[in-house]
Amino acid sequence: MKTKLSIFKIGGKILENEPQLFQFLQAVQSCAGAKIIVHGGGPKATQLAEQLNIVTQMVEGRRITNAAMLEVAVMVYAGLLNKKIVAVLQALGVNAIGLSGADANTILAQKRSIETIDFGFVGDIKKVDGQRLHEFIKAGLLPVFCAITHDGNGQLLNTNADTIARQIAVSLSSLYETELTFCFEQGGVLESNNGQLTVIKRLNFEHFQQLKGNGTINNGMIPKLDNAFKALQNGVTQVRITKFNRLQSGTQITLD
Amino acid sequence: MKTKLSIFKIGGKILENEPQLFQFLQAVQSCAGAKIIVHGGGPKATQLAEQLNIVTQMVEGRRITNAAMLEVAVMVYAGLLNKKIVAVLQALGVNAIGLSGADANTILAQKRSIETIDFGFVGDIKKVDGQRLHEFIKAGLLPVFCAITHDGNGQLLNTNADTIARQIAVSLSSLYETELTFCFEQGGVLESNNGQLTVIKRLNFEHFQQLKGNGTINNGMIPKLDNAFKALQNGVTQVRITKFNRLQSGTQITLD
Repeated sequence: MKTKLSIFKIGGKILENEPQLFQFLQAVQSCAGAKIIVHGGGPKATQLAEQLNIVTQMVEGRRITNAAMLEVAVMVYAGLLNKKIVAVLQALGVNAIGLSGADANTILAQKRSIETIDFGFVGDIKKVDGQRLHEFIKAGLLPVFCAITHDGNGQLLNTNADTIARQIAVSLSSLYETELTFCFEQGGVLESNNGQLTVIKRLNFEHFQQLKGNGTINNGMIPKLDNAFKALQNGVTQVRITKFNRLQSGTQITLD
Repeated sequence: MKTKLSIFKIGGKILENEPQLFQFLQAVQSCAGAKIIVHGGGPKATQLAEQLNIVTQMVEGRRITNAAMLEVAVMVYAGLLNKKIVAVLQALGVNAIGLSGADANTILAQKRSIETIDFGFVGDIKKVDGQRLHEFIKAGLLPVFCAITHDGNGQLLNTNADTIARQIAVSLSSLYETELTFCFEQGGVLESNNGQLTVIKRLNFEHFQQLKGNGTINNGMIPKLDNAFKALQNGVTQVRITKFNRLQSGTQITLD
């Protein structure tokens, strides 16, 4: 039987709130078994870009990562946030190691090709080195990934953290029973029952299509759920969307 | 017989000059044996602090690292510069891994005690985990350290890169023949011969005292040389101060 490996994705809003970040990291610490954390970026990058008078380019409502914006992302994600998380985990007695995809060549990506929109320095993942992550885990380390990858030719790339979490979980599914948990500020995937918002306990693909169709699920949640279903379709044992301090709770995603 | 391990410290000025940084990394790549890089910070942190209107506090001519300045240092050293170096090394076929002292608890430090001056969030090294670095090297990785450590209680600390390089070299001297090379923009330690500056080929402790006494060596070089002699006194086999692209050249430091 394979050992359990939990992959926790934590959203950017929690990272900006020190007490909430601490609660999340305590909750991770108290989980049994092997673990990996993937974190997003959040408001800090936007704030720093504003302070530096870097104009956020938007095309059709989507943010473009130009060279100046990539520098900000690398500073905030791989520097400030990643090292803060690692230092707090160390204080909790967890031997964390902060990584970008360039470190130990753990996540190789390619610059997104220009079809209709040039997103700039944005990476689509080509390969996760699951064997290397397995070695780190065997050595007693907890890898903490920021949302920066590289192309193998010296270029760092901004990469979606939900997708990184999913691809890491998939790449390690042959070695572990992988459980992927998306953690954020809400209790799970919400639906309205008689005007009251409640957490959906189990959400299968058919139900997801319905909720998407009738507009119940918002734009931020759709890519997260797309990642969740792709993970399950590619060997991940369990996927959950839950509150940052209640990791075993929330919405369980199932294929059927 | 122990294997050779080369520790290269690269100064901040070279990091700001992309062609020179590339030349340095190529020179490192072409060196045989196990390697570790330690890099400083340089003008980029000062520049970012200015852009963010963070006032650099100076006391008796020395810079104080307040909370805002520490954030800048973490962003620039652990984020921007560290990941740039790692990405370029990956492109050169070198499997680099970027680290702060918090990562894998590799360098534990303590906040400098307030005697006459409160330096702020500045760390003095307590322990380097040489065994962990040995494991990374055995796994085919080249560790790249920035000048950020931690105190084990969740606090990141700004730490002198020359000292980090020396302490890493010392901590690994029981496992390797360690060679420590300080790389910067000049050819080595310079002295004036009939009005012309020439590189000193060999510099022993007595000669160093003379040059310090007669003012030949400038303020920036003295702590570097103090680190160099301390390294030799604590088991490091060879110490060199040289130009960033001529790693086997420059000034060799000897005890006698």
